[in-house]
Amino acid sequence: MNALGSHILAEYYDCDISILNNLELLKQYMHEAAIKSGATIVGSTFHQYNPHGVSGVIVIAESHMAMHTWPEYGYAAVDFFTCGERVDPWKAFDYMNKKLKSAKNSKKELKRGLIEAESQKLLEVPL
Amino acid sequence: MNALGSHILAEYYDCDISILNNLELLKQYMHEAAIKSGATIVGSTFHQYNPHGVSGVIVIAESHMAMHTWPEYGYAAVDFFTCGERVDPWKAFDYMNKKLKSAKNSKKELKRGLIEAESQKLLEVPL
Repeated sequence: MNALGSHILAEYYDCDISILNNLELLKQYMHEAAIKSGATIVGSTFHQYNPHGVSGVIVIAESHMAMHTWPEYGYAAVDFFTCGERVDPWKAFDYMNKKLKSAKNSKKELKRGLIEAESQKLLEVPL
Repeated sequence: MNALGSHILAEYYDCDISILNNLELLKQYMHEAAIKSGATIVGSTFHQYNPHGVSGVIVIAESHMAMHTWPEYGYAAVDFFTCGERVDPWKAFDYMNKKLKSAKNSKKELKRGLIEAESQKLLEVPL
């Protein structure tokens, strides 16, 4: 079985609360994290919640990175879903850990798209 | 421990290839899936790859839904990350399963943001 993608699900706890509620800063950090990992950004959308909290997603040529913050708990959930050998999502993970000033984190790495050897013959895609 | 969010990671195999390469249709289906789950859409971004494949993310007030397709493998990875009791992400999962005409799927549900009882006192968020 080969995997098409790798998906890191990160939980950053005990972060700097003021950063978790700053859309412009989070957008900048997530873009920088994507670039540091070697990804190519193709689109993004960020949203500020009332009274607090930010959600944002960056679509990269190699899948996506997504963030949701709960400043009231000092917590951010961040996903780093990448494919290909050229991108190192752990560089993005480390960068966000530092930028959010997280004192505690947990993370899981899951493989996505397990393709069986016998089906690895590419299908004809109509264009 | 209480969880702030629920994250379904779905792998749809043996899908209809022509659908997996149709950005407009996928965008429509993902929006409809979000609405069927009870989510409130706040933004979205979709991207068509050359020669084939689509990535798209919908930011919802309750977190996000994301999709990446590999038409050449008949495969789509779709995430349904939601928070709150009002949204049922499994309705979105079932809807996408039907719309992609997937003959085989696998899925995992993970809890995100495990907040310990002693830290459930809300922090003061500067506005």
